[in-house]
Amino acid sequence: MNTYSTIEEKLKELRYLLDKKSLIELKELLNRTNSMDIVEFIEDLPAEEALLVFRLLRKDDAREVFAELDSDDKEKLQEGLNDKEFKDLLDDLNFDDMIDTLEEMPAALVKDILQSTDSKTRKLVNEYLQFPEDSAASLMTTEFVELSPDMTVGESLKLIEEVGKDKVIVYTSYVTNKAKELLGYVSLRSMVTSDEDVKIKDLMFEDVISVRTTEDQEDVAHVFQKYGFTALPVVDKTGKLVGIITVDDIMWIIEQEATEDFQRIAATSPEEEDYSKMSPWELAKNRIPWLMFLMISGAFTSTILKNYEDVIQTVIALNMFIPMLTGSGGNAGSQASTLVIRAMATNDIKSKDWLKVLSKEMLVGLICGLVLGFVAFLKCYFFDKVSMDIALVVAFAILSIIIMAKSIGSILPIVAKRLGADPAIMASPLITTIVDSLGLIVYFKIAQLILPGLLI
Amino acid sequence: MNTYSTIEEKLKELRYLLDKKSLIELKELLNRTNSMDIVEFIEDLPAEEALLVFRLLRKDDAREVFAELDSDDKEKLQEGLNDKEFKDLLDDLNFDDMIDTLEEMPAALVKDILQSTDSKTRKLVNEYLQFPEDSAASLMTTEFVELSPDMTVGESLKLIEEVGKDKVIVYTSYVTNKAKELLGYVSLRSMVTSDEDVKIKDLMFEDVISVRTTEDQEDVAHVFQKYGFTALPVVDKTGKLVGIITVDDIMWIIEQEATEDFQRIAATSPEEEDYSKMSPWELAKNRIPWLMFLMISGAFTSTILKNYEDVIQTVIALNMFIPMLTGSGGNAGSQASTLVIRAMATNDIKSKDWLKVLSKEMLVGLICGLVLGFVAFLKCYFFDKVSMDIALVVAFAILSIIIMAKSIGSILPIVAKRLGADPAIMASPLITTIVDSLGLIVYFKIAQLILPGLLI
Repeated sequence: MNTYSTIEEKLKELRYLLDKKSLIELKELLNRTNSMDIVEFIEDLPAEEALLVFRLLRKDDAREVFAELDSDDKEKLQEGLNDKEFKDLLDDLNFDDMIDTLEEMPAALVKDILQSTDSKTRKLVNEYLQFPEDSAASLMTTEFVELSPDMTVGESLKLIEEVGKDKVIVYTSYVTNKAKELLGYVSLRSMVTSDEDVKIKDLMFEDVISVRTTEDQEDVAHVFQKYGFTALPVVDKTGKLVGIITVDDIMWIIEQEATEDFQRIAATSPEEEDYSKMSPWELAKNRIPWLMFLMISGAFTSTILKNYEDVIQTVIALNMFIPMLTGSGGNAGSQASTLVIRAMATNDIKSKDWLKVLSKEMLVGLICGLVLGFVAFLKCYFFDKVSMDIALVVAFAILSIIIMAKSIGSILPIVAKRLGADPAIMASPLITTIVDSLGLIVYFKIAQLILPGLLI
Repeated sequence: MNTYSTIEEKLKELRYLLDKKSLIELKELLNRTNSMDIVEFIEDLPAEEALLVFRLLRKDDAREVFAELDSDDKEKLQEGLNDKEFKDLLDDLNFDDMIDTLEEMPAALVKDILQSTDSKTRKLVNEYLQFPEDSAASLMTTEFVELSPDMTVGESLKLIEEVGKDKVIVYTSYVTNKAKELLGYVSLRSMVTSDEDVKIKDLMFEDVISVRTTEDQEDVAHVFQKYGFTALPVVDKTGKLVGIITVDDIMWIIEQEATEDFQRIAATSPEEEDYSKMSPWELAKNRIPWLMFLMISGAFTSTILKNYEDVIQTVIALNMFIPMLTGSGGNAGSQASTLVIRAMATNDIKSKDWLKVLSKEMLVGLICGLVLGFVAFLKCYFFDKVSMDIALVVAFAILSIIIMAKSIGSILPIVAKRLGADPAIMASPLITTIVDSLGLIVYFKIAQLILPGLLI
């Protein structure tokens, strides 16, 4: 038995056997190791050793391991394999894994490989390579069991036994008519517990939920989450069944979509590559455009401060509270925008709810603003020992800035969505920049209203 | 056939039949509707109508629908049902759904319900109610098929047929010895394609990966993601099989863990409740402590500005660039901290990688700082028309602040993890606050170094 905590030990044992060159024992242990653990093992090896280990794998394991490797590691192996070995490996892969592999390879090599396949496969591959990257079609596998309504359970089970390879979902079979249109589904369980001569159409559920090839992968993930499916059929625009999507791919999509939102919220360009694999240059390249845009937008604050230079010089005490005010405004706005962005990503709120969200956040802003304003007043008056007038200006400014920040932070992501953009671009850094400028104006206006002797 | 886009129409049709009081047609349509869609339908109904619809459901659907409803909606129904109806409903639920329901109910009512059950169930329920909320145990179901190694395929299939209810995973059966210790697993597929008299021990895979009852749910999700499982056995500390976790629950965990990190990054207390269901009071309560803490920490900036009051009064031009500088520092720090927090959450980097991460971010900071510093110099000198000295001060300050912000932003989440805290608390708002204060000091120090006539 393998509990999760012993996997590290297994990897160490593999490493030890490899160093000792005990290839027979190594092969034997590899046979008893889950392919995903072998992937982890191979990823850390230099090219030569990786190839050695890869050649020790059983054919089935080799196929699974190769399909799961990163593009870098695939390249590492591919360079060591001869042409025939590599083409055999590609032929062994499930169709969708082959497509994924081809997508990652240089165009010239892909052309070379495709030339040696038959024209039917070539046509299909070319078709698949053209599906948009984030669509349902790009996630689907074409290897599934398709039954017709007039087949008997006995015939169906025989078919499943023949065509069902190890990795293909055979627990749900889809039923189609002659035109390949999806009619329903039938579970392996219901077949196993029925007589051999029962017709599929009598066992079939017609209430089958499917997605279109063009559906966005995020929406596909929501369908999986809502219904708790382990597989979902994909149909083209004419209703023909063209593939299925399995839940193991969806778990990655849920995580990847969240990661993209984190990246946008951090004001960097979204990137599929893992952080640990990106070079400083690539990271900087993704960050500089946003930093630059925000710095230039933030430069409005310089103009505002220049305009109010005489106010500051008349009451220099006002100046020292500026970072605290803009900081609090930024934080209040971040809270609202991040929560609204996340609630939209998880389908909890929709853009038609904008008025409900806005009024809720204004109320939240009022409550937070009153509490923080009161504390700020006490702090300015008793701790910083400024005059009561100035403490009042700071308190009212905090209150107004927080209400404003909550309103802007909640409404801008919804506006972005309405305009067809990703709500996550309206995240903390942009909200903070906007609130900084507006907050300064509010602050000086309040100062001019309350403090005597300042020109309005 | 039901494509995803027609579900809205179905809900409208249900609504229409309910308004017309065409209960027979309504019942018939409900029978053809997926339980998750019925959940969506019932959630939007007032208590009386919800109860009416609920009573029209088939027993199986009622069980599934009730299990999936929110606690508010469960309460709505429970108040309308009489005691006997409610107890029957609870008895019908899967054990884990019953536990979830009991957890959400007032303690007095739970006591009342438990009194009427037999002592064995009562003991089991009490045990389950004590599992920590985020543990593997809290996710597991106890309804699974358990085989012994000496059973034949024929016996096993008969057992599965008898005990396998609709909602329980029967596609993987777990094999245990007399002491209930987990020995391996066997797939329904391999049983279906074997002869009746083959022994389970000859079909069984011994390489079974399992998790402990105490394992954190986030780690359980990582196991599912890595291996692409649809179910995972849970063992107690003696190796006894006590339950299984299925992938449909895991999809929600992946999303919920990401949502918690979004909440922490937004500097609000994490909350399991959906945003749309929280009142302004609850939202404010989760946000005020952080806003207050950050405002008070941010007040250091006031002290720093007060200390440098004479520098500002000597060269008033320095003042107008402060918000732009602190803003850019905050943005640069947010980028680093958010990406590092996310990379740690997805297991891409670990806390032992701290030196690699820190040096990478310092290099990224150098690149970003040089580019932004250069642009800031041009902007100050040509657009704001300040002296070359001051433009140089701003440029060097940007460079230093960005390197500092990247370093602090990348290292603090790792430090938090090492100290056993959640890395996500070291998110943008806190990093921004720290960088604001340190950035101001750096700015004035650089000014004193470069500008003639300022006291050092």
